[in-house]
Amino acid sequence: MTAQLNARGDVAVLVPAAGAGVRLGPGGPKALRLLAGEPLLVHAVRRVAAAPSVRMIVVAAPAADVEAVSELLTPITPVSVVAGGAERQESVGRALAVVPADVPIVLVHDAARALTPPDLIESVASAVRAGRPAVIPTLPVVDTIKEASPEGLVLGTVDRSVLRSVQTPQGFQHQVLAAAHAAASDPLTDDAGLAEKAGIPVTCVLGSELALKITRPLDLVIAEALLAHGPF
Amino acid sequence: MTAQLNARGDVAVLVPAAGAGVRLGPGGPKALRLLAGEPLLVHAVRRVAAAPSVRMIVVAAPAADVEAVSELLTPITPVSVVAGGAERQESVGRALAVVPADVPIVLVHDAARALTPPDLIESVASAVRAGRPAVIPTLPVVDTIKEASPEGLVLGTVDRSVLRSVQTPQGFQHQVLAAAHAAASDPLTDDAGLAEKAGIPVTCVLGSELALKITRPLDLVIAEALLAHGPF
Repeated sequence: MTAQLNARGDVAVLVPAAGAGVRLGPGGPKALRLLAGEPLLVHAVRRVAAAPSVRMIVVAAPAADVEAVSELLTPITPVSVVAGGAERQESVGRALAVVPADVPIVLVHDAARALTPPDLIESVASAVRAGRPAVIPTLPVVDTIKEASPEGLVLGTVDRSVLRSVQTPQGFQHQVLAAAHAAASDPLTDDAGLAEKAGIPVTCVLGSELALKITRPLDLVIAEALLAHGPF
Repeated sequence: MTAQLNARGDVAVLVPAAGAGVRLGPGGPKALRLLAGEPLLVHAVRRVAAAPSVRMIVVAAPAADVEAVSELLTPITPVSVVAGGAERQESVGRALAVVPADVPIVLVHDAARALTPPDLIESVASAVRAGRPAVIPTLPVVDTIKEASPEGLVLGTVDRSVLRSVQTPQGFQHQVLAAAHAAASDPLTDDAGLAEKAGIPVTCVLGSELALKITRPLDLVIAEALLAHGPF
């Protein structure tokens, strides 16, 4: 049995949160770091659940914490929690394995992008629904970008007009993600990269400034301000 | 006569703030947008003035606003205000023209990077003092970066480990910046890019998350949070 949000929804959202530093308890787990008193994972899952197309959410937690993460999220929304693997890619694979074949669209989402608006989740899902096999939300690159040697000598200025900064959720036709993961050899943190390697066309949709990845201590200050600022 | 901050300082800092949308009065000028009740330019200049190596600050303002910008900044710190040009590069050139030849180090700084810590200004100046002809503060690129076609089709994943996101202040040996500007043909928004074109080696030093460019409305929310969070 898998926990359902909306029987009419056609989207499953996978949230890999089993990596190092994601353990419950003391020690500063990333996905469970508190933002305005609640773990990042809770913020992320709440927003995913608010997207009308989402039928199910599958969180990959550390094996030892499956029950605890389940208890954490159940008051928020129906969610399936599976034991993740050592690598992010393995966690995505295990979460994907519990998605029924009749769910046509699968998104993979970072818990650390805890303020991602439901609208962006809909926008990615909608592009997949319209026929794109793989879809990523991206933002233009704002700062000047240089290529530099490891010693910090500038090798050249990069044409940033062709660059896109990639966010999540990344969206896929179910069978495309399954095939890309089955074919993958090297572990990647970027699911669209797997699709690219498999020769699948990947399309960009406009991302959101609110979908920032909350990793550095300063990001928490920023995220709290964004959270206080408006209803997202 | 040029306004001096610290007669022992060996650094002049140029702040081009004459571009479109920088006019005083209503209409939302960028450099004069309010952050916690004060224009960005005031925040930026206050932090520049707090860097012990800085001998002088030269702001390039719109020709019609030289006096008003001078009145705005004089209560903060001694500062020279010159009439800027139509292009940023022209404004930098005009500001550079008033820097005495005996000031060996010249930095160019964005007013929109209003929270740049004095420490970063010192760090850039110090690398120039140590013999680097051109120095830029940079941060590693955190997000996955893709190259995409104008239509939004992903062309490939970029190796972000070689990329650096560029901030300001950018620092130069006085004569290097003068020569680079004299040789420049195309207008550039990136002074280090001029030095690169002139064949000058450009070196990276570690930038600061606080030196973010405040341009989008959301950036103001972020900047106010950073400002409220700690003493910078």
